[in-house]
This record gives sequence, structure tokens and C-alpha cells, in this order.
Amino acid sequence: MVGIIMGSDSDLPVMEQAEAVLKEFGVPYELDVMSAHRSPDRVREWVSTARDRGLKVIIAGAGMSAHLAGVVAAHTTLPVIGVPLASGALNGVDALYSTVNMPPGVPVATVAVDGARNAGILAVQILATSDASLAAKLEDFKKKMAAKVEERSKKHRRSTL
Amino acid sequence: MVGIIMGSDSDLPVMEQAEAVLKEFGVPYELDVMSAHRSPDRVREWVSTARDRGLKVIIAGAGMSAHLAGVVAAHTTLPVIGVPLASGALNGVDALYSTVNMPPGVPVATVAVDGARNAGILAVQILATSDASLAAKLEDFKKKMAAKVEERSKKHRRSTL
Amino acid sequence: MVGIIMGSDSDLPVMEQAEAVLKEFGVPYELDVMSAHRSPDRVREWVSTARDRGLKVIIAGAGMSAHLAGVVAAHTTLPVIGVPLASGALNGVDALYSTVNMPPGVPVATVAVDGARNAGILAVQILATSDASLAAKLEDFKKKMAAKVEERSKKHRRSTL
Amino acid sequence: MVGIIMGSDSDLPVMEQAEAVLKEFGVPYELDVMSAHRSPDRVREWVSTARDRGLKVIIAGAGMSAHLAGVVAAHTTLPVIGVPLASGALNGVDALYSTVNMPPGVPVATVAVDGARNAGILAVQILATSDASLAAKLEDFKKKMAAKVEERSKKHRRSTL
Amino acid sequence: MVGIIMGSDSDLPVMEQAEAVLKEFGVPYELDVMSAHRSPDRVREWVSTARDRGLKVIIAGAGMSAHLAGVVAAHTTLPVIGVPLASGALNGVDALYSTVNMPPGVPVATVAVDGARNAGILAVQILATSDASLAAKLEDFKKKMAAKVEERSKKHRRSTL
Amino acid sequence: MVGIIMGSDSDLPVMEQAEAVLKEFGVPYELDVMSAHRSPDRVREWVSTARDRGLKVIIAGAGMSAHLAGVVAAHTTLPVIGVPLASGALNGVDALYSTVNMPPGVPVATVAVDGARNAGILAVQILATSDASLAAKLEDFKKKMAAKVEERSKKHRRSTL
Amino acid sequence: MVGIIMGSDSDLPVMEQAEAVLKEFGVPYELDVMSAHRSPDRVREWVSTARDRGLKVIIAGAGMSAHLAGVVAAHTTLPVIGVPLASGALNGVDALYSTVNMPPGVPVATVAVDGARNAGILAVQILATSDASLAAKLEDFKKKMAAKVEERSKKHRRSTL
Amino acid sequence: MVGIIMGSDSDLPVMEQAEAVLKEFGVPYELDVMSAHRSPDRVREWVSTARDRGLKVIIAGAGMSAHLAGVVAAHTTLPVIGVPLASGALNGVDALYSTVNMPPGVPVATVAVDGARNAGILAVQILATSDASLAAKLEDFKKKMAAKVEERSKKHRRSTL
Repeated sequence: MVGIIMGSDSDLPVMEQAEAVLKEFGVPYELDVMSAHRSPDRVREWVSTARDRGLKVIIAGAGMSAHLAGVVAAHTTLPVIGVPLASGALNGVDALYSTVNMPPGVPVATVAVDGARNAGILAVQILATSDASLAAKLEDFKKKMAAKVEERSKKHRRSTL
Repeated sequence: MVGIIMGSDSDLPVMEQAEAVLKEFGVPYELDVMSAHRSPDRVREWVSTARDRGLKVIIAGAGMSAHLAGVVAAHTTLPVIGVPLASGALNGVDALYSTVNMPPGVPVATVAVDGARNAGILAVQILATSDASLAAKLEDFKKKMAAKVEERSKKHRRSTL
Repeated sequence: MVGIIMGSDSDLPVMEQAEAVLKEFGVPYELDVMSAHRSPDRVREWVSTARDRGLKVIIAGAGMSAHLAGVVAAHTTLPVIGVPLASGALNGVDALYSTVNMPPGVPVATVAVDGARNAGILAVQILATSDASLAAKLEDFKKKMAAKVEERSKKHRRSTL
Repeated sequence: MVGIIMGSDSDLPVMEQAEAVLKEFGVPYELDVMSAHRSPDRVREWVSTARDRGLKVIIAGAGMSAHLAGVVAAHTTLPVIGVPLASGALNGVDALYSTVNMPPGVPVATVAVDGARNAGILAVQILATSDASLAAKLEDFKKKMAAKVEERSKKHRRSTL
Repeated sequence: MVGIIMGSDSDLPVMEQAEAVLKEFGVPYELDVMSAHRSPDRVREWVSTARDRGLKVIIAGAGMSAHLAGVVAAHTTLPVIGVPLASGALNGVDALYSTVNMPPGVPVATVAVDGARNAGILAVQILATSDASLAAKLEDFKKKMAAKVEERSKKHRRSTL
Repeated sequence: MVGIIMGSDSDLPVMEQAEAVLKEFGVPYELDVMSAHRSPDRVREWVSTARDRGLKVIIAGAGMSAHLAGVVAAHTTLPVIGVPLASGALNGVDALYSTVNMPPGVPVATVAVDGARNAGILAVQILATSDASLAAKLEDFKKKMAAKVEERSKKHRRSTL
Repeated sequence: MVGIIMGSDSDLPVMEQAEAVLKEFGVPYELDVMSAHRSPDRVREWVSTARDRGLKVIIAGAGMSAHLAGVVAAHTTLPVIGVPLASGALNGVDALYSTVNMPPGVPVATVAVDGARNAGILAVQILATSDASLAAKLEDFKKKMAAKVEERSKKHRRSTL
Repeated sequence: MVGIIMGSDSDLPVMEQAEAVLKEFGVPYELDVMSAHRSPDRVREWVSTARDRGLKVIIAGAGMSAHLAGVVAAHTTLPVIGVPLASGALNGVDALYSTVNMPPGVPVATVAVDGARNAGILAVQILATSDASLAAKLEDFKKKMAAKVEERSKKHRRSTL
């Protein structure tokens, strides 16, 4: 259901955080490496056949000029989630600006710099709009998250009042 | 299906661009004004009952510290689209940073500063993952967009080669 | 009198600098971990009962989108001190912008990025507006600070005039 | 109770928003123009006698290098609220950085660029920590603010669900 | 010899400054409007046949996420000159970062924000590396430019020494 | 004694503020227009003979890449004051960075963006290190400046204490 | 054919990436160290005779105020490629702004911060506009680059669809 | 002749680079540690008597809000050189903005972030405007600097032309 692509295999350690979320939620996915600048035809081909391969959401991570998510969005009407990756002298601010400031008509749903984990969760949320079972898992996930914070709270809270 | 909220009625002219897209695609929506900082209980109540009211996607626009989308995302597992709005001395960079840099676990799908039109399109793309008719309309929309650019091209292109 | 909260227990090393100041001045305090995004109901509950628990000032530290201080300020009329924390690709500039640029009506008293020590001192200054003993301690603190700089000056000053 | 100072009389239109809040809440105040760079002795004298004149909180607004709030904080242990003012080529980012990034020991409670209204409210919140009547007024103010947003909501909300 | 493209016809007033330079130097050119995001297939087709149509240099102008120059560079080995255009809330900083920070292997020769005139001159300089007549014209252009500054100097210079 | 140069005659309105200061203090000066990029030989010649023409300080104003002050500093050991000028999409931040971040060995004394008036005053301060009469005038100037602020203070100060 | 210069020998590790490209493509080159600020006469002399020594393109790398490329461009009509180098507190943003924002008439073809490899490729692309053999090598280079990405893709791609 | 002060003894390693220059040129100096925020009275006293102690130029280094140079300039008509120091989350950009953007009437001659060596050289240049011996030493220094670059050039230059 979800395609995860990235511009370079050096992006794998970050982007695998999106994959981990999909595994956790039992969502089928594809993961691949392709570059908007170095293998543009491969990207176009991959995107053009994405819907037919069963993809419903695409997650694209890239650094620096970070055109990958935008190029993907240019070729599909599936929702595209962009993950700006920190690298180079500007440490991801460039990738954030390149990913988020898309022109009217071609949105990219942008998450935080290196926010691949949230990209995975957002993809699940999108699929859950038509999948009650996933929606229930998300509710559970949210509760566990709150519980985990509460656990940390219990461990650390103190008062001299 | 889609909820559109904003922090202030001064945000209406921008946020109505999202509404216009939903009308264009025939997607039912709610539009409302509420503030994460000035009417937080109203926001919480609105979000908590969002799913029951039939909402599947929420679009939240806010300027400056721009906590609205994040606060909404804290209270729901529906996909939340954040629109950073330009205002104040930092002209929307603050709103962009506040909206996009969410912590792991609570994503906000962020679009460009003042990118309400793209927020609307992204919402339609999300709904279209389970609605073939909407998906077809999006394909049509994309073709018309390309055609319009081609029209402009024809009007302006020139060559002295 | 003073509540110190932070979005994650990874913020403890910085935020404990605020705690240290309160201990130094003998000001009773509560310290807790809770997240505006991951445990919003806990935050709301904690803030709503803050005044009744005897809190007069609240210090809230958070990184990245850093909504915690703003969310707290939305639910109380107690003075709220926000500590933007450095983390992620933007290293705290995002947290600074998210914390300081609050809309009219809901101020957050913002200190420097990672400025938890100053947050503690500011809290003491606020309490000292109605506590002559604390005010005297602050005067003493200020003198010692000047004396310490003078000591460093004596150690390092040199002249070839 | 509250002193409001600014570096130049061109700052009056913004800083009078702080004054308006104090009037609204019936809090006695002083307002004056003095410059950390052009009349430093006047500033020092004014600050040194502030407590004796009955001041409990000081609001200082300045643009560009914006040293006024910091210089005031250097000379008093009263809480100092800094208002960075937008002016010059950097439009207030310089003033924000100059005001907020104070060294450990000398805090300045910073509000948004041009956030004089919030500076006024913050001053009232500080005074209200020991004044039940002011605290009640703040609660009322907060309710009215929420009511006003609700009013705007009623005027603009619409639904096609 | 030179292709000038831009993402939108609203970019024409700036990009025509590049055209004006080519006219001035008698360099044949094509000018067209096409969008990396809205008409990506048109861009790919246009670039793929660029060399065969006789183009030796390509100038691409775009604003915001500004992927056009990068997408063009992905599909050709001709030198690509990118002109970041000022628009939107970030006023061209986003376009600058998107255009200049290309990954190793796919350069874009970037000029200043809205620097279309310099893009035209740079294109002429590139062609002049193998065209002695153009090189001579450039030398003449440079002399005239210095002469013009000297003229302004003569008009305004003054001395009280 | 002081040379004032700028890259373009469009910089005159700002740079004449430096000239006005020199007139006010009775300091002889030269003012000229020359460009580090468009008339570099003229700049080199002008600088090389600067000391012989009686110049003791040079003020150079430029916008955007703003190399003028640095180029001048490369060719002289006289103190060089750089005035970054606001222009273009980056509004002077580029000029500030270009002017101030000089490598070790070749300083440029940088003032605020568009800070030509302060450049003039700084030049007078430098000359005054060996001119008691100028030093006295500066003391007088400083007193008048404080008096003027005091005048404004008297006009606007008010108190409800 | 190509001259590579840099402001300091500490820039060698980065700038040698441009040299490596030229070696790879068999393009003759000169490499030298000279400073726009510390040895300006050497720069002027080197540039003035560049064309006569057979240079067709010049690559100039510099950090901080980064005037080298601009100064070179002031003295030649050959295409000048500027490489902003990361160093100092601003980590190359200053060098990027100094290099790219050249005034009309004197372009510098700017690549990414530390983008020396791309500077080398761009130089080859420029020479290839009149050298069919180089153009063929570039096509081959581009294919190999795509093939390498494809290889990485094959190694890492996975699917649970 | 030259006073060097800094806000903290942690600034010594950087500020001693200014001291080293003065030693190198045989210029008498004072070096001291004092804080605009923690020991403001000491600063005022030190500055007020600076001229009488024989100081002709003052170098002030500070980080973060970096008010020291501005506060010094407020109290003297001697030329003040400001050295913004890198520290904290903003790494010196805050100190640069705080130091350079002084209001009209009170200039600070600002050098690069951590540019203490250049501050020393600038101080020598200022003194040399009335000291022919120092001026000669500076000429010599400049020649040696060019010679050193030439030496590096000789070591590294290579050519395959």
C-alpha cells in the first residue's frame, strides 16, 4: 500500500524509521532507492506504475535541493509525503524549503527534517481513513504513547510543595 | 468529510482557498474559527467529536507560533494538514517551523506558507485513496493543469533559432 | 510555588538547571514530564489544577515545534515561562520561534534557547515581587554574580600601558 | 507598579499597546523614553530608583541591537519584560535575538516581535500572583477572549456535511 | 543556441531580462513556459530534444520549491543555469536553496535571486568559450560597463580635501 | 581625510548620510562612485593612491554580494569601514555577511545594514584619536544626543503611580 | 583549459574534488592558491593572463566573505564558477550569499556549499558545448551515474506488497 | 593605547588573538574581563576612565545577546570594535546581530564572528592613522601576508595545460 523511496542509500538509516512504522502496523510496503537527479527516468517509471502496483501513499525522502518528493508529486495524484533529510552545510533547512514550498496544484505533505517516523505514521493515518482496523490500531498506538509519557512522568516527577 | 479550521477570522481569505478546492471536487466540509490559545477547550471538543461528525481529514491554518495544527493532531488520529500562515515580523517562517517540526508520534502534514489551496488538494488526495470517483476527478484535474500550462506556453513561446 | 514541566525526559539535564535555582533560593516546586502532543489531556489537567495546588508560576521547556508553553498558557492566567530547547536539525531556532511568537492575549515569557537557569531566576524574580525575603536574596545573588566576575577579572587582567 | 520604557519615541505606537492593557486592568504605570545607547546614564538612574518609585515589573521595548531590556535587567532584580521591535533591514529578528539570548543570571522575559500587548498582559499576570483582584480580572479577560473567538466562529462557521 | 524556460508566465517580466541579453548579443534563443510540477512530461520532452534543436545552454527560472532547473539538469548534460525567483513568504531564499544545493553529479549554475540578466550574460560567456566573435563582444560589453560607472562617478564625485 | 565610495549611484541617498556627518564635523572628504565588479581597475587605482591624496579612513558601501569594502581593504592598510546596503531579495543580510566575515589579516569595520550615518561617526571617532578638537566635538555631539532623548522623554513621559 | 583557484590551502581537500573530475574527463587544468584579500595583485595578474594561458573556464572556491569568485569575474569575461566553502560560525551560508548575489553584468555560476565536484562537472559541460568528444563522455558519465543508483536500488529494494 | 575586554573568561582563548596582534605590533594594551549584564557598574567605570588611562581604541568581545560593545560605545566617544563570539544554540549569529545593528549615533565597528585577530589589526590600523611607524609596520605585515600566500601557492600549484 505504501511506497518508500529515497534519493541515496545513505538515507536508509533515517528512512527505515518509516519502514519500521509500517511493519509495526502490518501495512504492506515497497522500499527503493532512486534519484530525481541521477535516475529521473527510473523515478518517473516507478511513480507512473505506482497505483497499479497497489500503492496508495508514497513517502519520499531527500536531502539538499530535495526535489524527489516534488518530482513524484508531479507524476501522480496519490498523496505524497516528503521527508526533508539533514545533510550538507545547511543541515536540512534547504531540504525543508525545497520539499514544502510546492506551487498550487501539486502538494507535498511535509514532515520535520529527518521525520521519517512521522512520515510512516502519517501514511498509516491516511490509509486508516478507509480502514477501521488500522484506525483502531492508531487509537491504541496513541494511548500507548500517552501511557509511556505518563510512565516517564511517574519516574521523574517530584515536588517540594 | 473534511474539517477546515483557523485561529482567527483574519485567516479566512487564505483558508477559503482550501474550501474552494473542496467545493470544486464536491467534497462535504465544515469550516470554523477557533484558537488553540484563546479557545483551547472549544478546539479540544471540536476535535474529539470530529470523527463522529464524519470528518476524515482536518486542515488547520494558523500564523506566528501556529500551534493549532499540532494541538489538533494531539487529540486525534485522523490525518491533520497544517497550513502555516504568513503574518507578523517573521512573515510565516515561524509558523512553518512551528507547524512542521512535530515530535515523533504526532505528525502534521505541512504545506507551504499560505498554501491553503494545496491543503485542500491534499485532503482530496487522501480521500481519493478510497474513492475511485474522486481519484478520477484528480486525474482530470491534473490533466487540466498541464493543459493550462501548455496554453500559456503556446501564448508566450518564441524562438529565433 | 513553581511548576517545572518538560515535553520529554530527555529534556531533564537542561530543565534541572531551573530546578537547581529554585532549590538555591528555597522556593518550593513541582517538576514533571508531560507532552503537549503525546499526553495533552494530562497537560490540561495538570494546568487546570495548578493554581489550586499552590503554583504561582509555570516553567515549560520543549524542543522543535515546542507547543508546550503555549498550550499551558492557553489554560491558565498564571505567568508562563517558556524555555525553547535545542534539538533536531534546526537546533532550537524552531523552538524559539514556536515559543515566543504567541498571539495577542496569551503571552509566554520566553528565555534563551536552553536558558533553563534563567527561567528559574525569572520565576524567583516574579515571586519576589511580593516576597521581601526573596527580593533580598536576589539582591545578594546579583552582588555575588558581580563579585564572581570581578574575581575572574582580577585573575586575568593585565596591562602593558 | 509597572514601568514602560522604550528607546525612541518612534516606538510609542507599538509600546502604547502595553499601556492600554495596564489602563484596562487599572494598574498604575509610568511610561518614558530613554535609550541604552544614547542616554545610558538616564537609564541607569531610572532603573536604580525603580523599586523605590514603586515599580514591580519593567517593560522595555527596543529595535535593532535592542540592548535596552538587557541593560535594565543588569541593574535591577525586578522582572524585566523585553519587547523586540521590528525595524531596519532585519525587521526585528535582530531585536529578538538581542533581547532573548541573555546570559545565565540575568533573564529577560521576552515576548513576540512588536508584542507589546502581550508584554502588558504578562506584567498583569506577574502582579496578579499576589493580587487576587487582578487574578480575577485576568480570568474574566480570558473568558471574554474565548467568547469573542466563539462569536467569530458563530459568524463564519459553515458546513456541507 | 540558448533555451530559456520558466515555471509560470508570471515569471516572464524577470526572465525576459535574460532574453534581452541574448538579443543584445545576437544569440539565437527559444523561450517557453513549462512547469516541473504541473507539466513534467512537457519538460522532459523539451529537454530531451534540446540538443537536437540546437540548444547549447539552458536557462531555467522558478520560484518557491524551484525544481525546474534541477529537473532539467537531470535530463541533459548541457550546462543548465538556474535563476531562483522571488515569490511567496520566503521571498526567494527557498528558491535559492532549492536551485543551488544540487547533489554531486548534477550541477546547476545558479545566479542571484531574480538574476535573469546575469543568467543571460553567463550563457553568452559559455557560448563565447568557442566563439571568438562573441568573446570580443563580451570584452566590449565589459568596457562599456566600466565606462558607464565612470560616467556616474564623474557626475557625482566631489571632494573637500 | 575620509574617502566615501559606493558601488552604484543608486546608493547615494543612503551613503550621503555619511557625508552629512563629515560636513557636520568639518572633516574634509572625497565621495565617489566605483564598482568592485564593474570597474575594478578604477577601484584599485583609487585605493592605491588614497593615502597620498590624504585619506586616513575609507568608507565603502555596497549591496548584495557587497565585495567593495573587502576589495578596498585588500589594497590598503588604512582602516576601512563597510556599510552593507539593503537591496535585492535578501534585503541586506547578504551584504552584511559579505562585508563582515573577512578572513584573518584583512579587517573591515562593519556597521549596520544601511548604517551610513554611523559609518561617518565612526570615521570621525577614528580621526579623533589624534585630534583633540574633533574629540571635543564628539563629546559635545554625545551630550546633545542624550539631551535630545531627554527632550523626547519630557514630551512623552507620563505616570499614574 | 580550466583554472582552479582557492583562497587558502586549507581549501585544498574540498577543491581537489573539482580537480579529480577534470582528471577523470582528461581536461587539462591549472590549480593554484591565491587570495582576493591577502594577495589581490596576484589574483588580478593571474586572471588577466588566464585567457592567454589557454584557460576557458575558471573555478574559484572561497569561504566566509568569499570574494574570490566575484573578484575574478570582475577581471575576465570567461565563465567563472564559484564554490562557496563551509567555514566559520555561519558554516558557508555567508560564502553562498557572497558568491551568488552578484550585481547585474558580472555573473558567477554558483554551485552548492562545498560543491567542488559539481563545479568540475559544470566546467566540463561548458567545454563540451564545443567538444563532441567531451559531450559523449558526459553522456556516458550520466548513464553510469544512473546505473550506479540502479545498482544501489537492486541491493536495497524490498517489498511486502 | 588599546583596551581589550570580554564578558567572560571563557572568551579568553578567542580574545587573546587580539592581544597577540597588539604584542606583535608593540602596541601597549590592557586586557580585562567584565560583563555588561553581570557587572555593569564595573564596565561603566572602566569605560569612563578609559581615555584618562591612555586608551585610544576599545575592543569588546561578547557572545549571545552580546551587549558589551554597545554598552561600552554608549559611554565613550573612543572608537569601539565589537567581536561577536560564537556560543549557544545560534552559534554567534545572535551575537553578530546584537553587535552590528547599533542605532544612529552610537557605532560599533564590527568584525566577523570570533574575528578577534582582525579586531586587533583594525585597532592597529586606527592607531596608525597618526603613527607613521605603525603604518610602516602594517605595510610590512601586508606584504608578508601576500608572501605567505605566494609561498603556499608555490607549494601547491600544478598544471596539466
